[in-house]
Amino acid sequence: MPNKILNKLKEVINSKDFTPLHIPIFEGNEIDYVTDCIKSNFVSSVGEYVNKFEEAISKYTGAKYAILTVNGTSALHISLLLVGVKRDDEVLMPAMTFIATANAVSYIGAIPHFVDVDEKTLGIDSKKLDEYLSRICEMRNGECFNKNTNKRIKAIVPMHTFGHPVDMDELIKVAKKYNIEIVEDAAESLGSFYKGVHTGNFGKVSAISFNGNKIITTGGGGCILTNDEELAKKAKHITTTAKIPHPYEYEHDTIGYNYRMPALNAALGLAQIEKLPEFIEKKRKLAKIYQNFFKDIEEVEFFVEPEYAKSNYWLNAIILKENNKSLRDEILKETNENGIMTRPIWKLMHHLEMFKNCPKMDLSVSENLENRIINIPSSAYLGEKQ
Amino acid sequence: MPNKILNKLKEVINSKDFTPLHIPIFEGNEIDYVTDCIKSNFVSSVGEYVNKFEEAISKYTGAKYAILTVNGTSALHISLLLVGVKRDDEVLMPAMTFIATANAVSYIGAIPHFVDVDEKTLGIDSKKLDEYLSRICEMRNGECFNKNTNKRIKAIVPMHTFGHPVDMDELIKVAKKYNIEIVEDAAESLGSFYKGVHTGNFGKVSAISFNGNKIITTGGGGCILTNDEELAKKAKHITTTAKIPHPYEYEHDTIGYNYRMPALNAALGLAQIEKLPEFIEKKRKLAKIYQNFFKDIEEVEFFVEPEYAKSNYWLNAIILKENNKSLRDEILKETNENGIMTRPIWKLMHHLEMFKNCPKMDLSVSENLENRIINIPSSAYLGEKQ
Repeated sequence: MPNKILNKLKEVINSKDFTPLHIPIFEGNEIDYVTDCIKSNFVSSVGEYVNKFEEAISKYTGAKYAILTVNGTSALHISLLLVGVKRDDEVLMPAMTFIATANAVSYIGAIPHFVDVDEKTLGIDSKKLDEYLSRICEMRNGECFNKNTNKRIKAIVPMHTFGHPVDMDELIKVAKKYNIEIVEDAAESLGSFYKGVHTGNFGKVSAISFNGNKIITTGGGGCILTNDEELAKKAKHITTTAKIPHPYEYEHDTIGYNYRMPALNAALGLAQIEKLPEFIEKKRKLAKIYQNFFKDIEEVEFFVEPEYAKSNYWLNAIILKENNKSLRDEILKETNENGIMTRPIWKLMHHLEMFKNCPKMDLSVSENLENRIINIPSSAYLGEKQ
Repeated sequence: MPNKILNKLKEVINSKDFTPLHIPIFEGNEIDYVTDCIKSNFVSSVGEYVNKFEEAISKYTGAKYAILTVNGTSALHISLLLVGVKRDDEVLMPAMTFIATANAVSYIGAIPHFVDVDEKTLGIDSKKLDEYLSRICEMRNGECFNKNTNKRIKAIVPMHTFGHPVDMDELIKVAKKYNIEIVEDAAESLGSFYKGVHTGNFGKVSAISFNGNKIITTGGGGCILTNDEELAKKAKHITTTAKIPHPYEYEHDTIGYNYRMPALNAALGLAQIEKLPEFIEKKRKLAKIYQNFFKDIEEVEFFVEPEYAKSNYWLNAIILKENNKSLRDEILKETNENGIMTRPIWKLMHHLEMFKNCPKMDLSVSENLENRIINIPSSAYLGEKQ
């Protein structure tokens, strides 16, 4: 069976070179804009390219405000602070996520609290969550408390796995019921829409990522999205060391961060976002090809976007059927040794040493999926080949 | 008098254009390297330019290991973690410093403890510090404790103000006596030498900055320096999300950070560091010119590097004599309104709302200096004019 999958991948990829999981494409104005940025002498965080890229993101996503940061992790960190997460609060998040989600919560001294996902969306299972919260929580002065730990549950961070949107309508209902703030971890979902609206518009604040492996990249970078003017102002303030604006004096009014994206990186980003519609088209084409190719391998299923979504298909995934999950490591070995990069999904958060004692609900779906998901090469250029 | 100073500055600067405090110069390989970096497709933190720039920094400073970070603040944050600073520890630092020093300590949940500076060096006054520590500290199992607060004093952060080195020999003696780790805040002192050795080699770990206003820039960026192999490895590990190296699997063994500099910025940095000797020559020439020009204004003193130092003169400063300090704001106003940017020194840390209740020693020298220091235009290109 591992061989069958390797051959399928070879057919789609059709290349003798090593094929990485995801690489960026620089075929637009990248070199022009970056050169122009250097020539302007404004390469740091007060450059014009920062404003231009922020405007382009705002326009593309439909979010009123976009605030660029040094990476997705810092965008998440600030987003959590903006909705009022404090030391010793609990923050709900899927156990099946990239480490950044849990790290950002830890930076505040808050505690990740892991919840389960829905196999059909790979995002938080809101029905199961509601049932769980109704058992362990109680409302105290309008705030949600975990009766077991006596901690406040302040926020929930839905993460749009591989770019596929969480079922937000259902999640919003649950979050409202328990008065829990939503911070969307949209790190992977730039270009993904939920019922026609771009991801990142459902949380009070949201975070996206432009890391080197993302659908568009700024080298390293991220962005905070919000539709709330006050929070947008605050985001800009605390990401720029909380300095009170003044032509030459240095006064700061709170503990701030040095989290603003330099213009050099924003210049790259501006060129990249111009190409985003093209990248998405190619990536969706690639996903269609994979979907067709994998139809006749009955041991696996190719993961398809939920009905309500138009996904960026950031990372394509195959899911081994229950009775084949013992083959995961063999498939990973076989493909990687043959120059086709594949990888398992992230180790679940509660399986990592530093988060193993965090509160959690029944995670049987995540645990079952952990050993069944394999990501396969997903770069946009692969969509051109067929 | 404000007019006399304005006219002096006009004479040196000799330009009708607005003159900023400090701007970068991109006249070397900046565009070539950045273009090459984009063409290589490796713009993120695993790019070749990251290694090359790290090697160049290591070679220039003489520090065995250089680990690039997203900025100086993040380099300081990690440096403090590396020497073992923990939540609720106290960390000694000058009250006269940029906010990043105090912020980095706060990120850990540790407490800044402010100490005074020496008017002749603008750096920590080690004699006064020793006398202070002998009164307030006691050793418990070989560790230094503040008797007043009952907190451990784990580290001290000397900051090389405007690039002028602290008298490190004296500070090292005091730090040894009380078993306090030294983390050098060398953010401003790339290119500055103490008794022939580059700053950043005296602390167990040190931080430098490549922010847009620094002597060389990467847009935004910083670097950790150390001569300790173990700490260097640890620095690289926790700045890359503490991921255990593996070709495709995702396991992390501690709470980590997303703090590595992208290759795009490192490419700019590599071109910049090639020009560093030239920048320093020009900046030292400019300082000499200022020194001569200000000789005949008896109301102010131009700040000259301490005898033991060869300084990069990152930011030039004039210091108003005691009886003229009421003129500071008028001079700032007059110069800025006439297109020559000047600024006061940072507001002292204990005068900021969020740090006003932190422990501190007598800060009379810093307080006296706070209203007397004015930074004047210091870009390297100004050194060419004469």
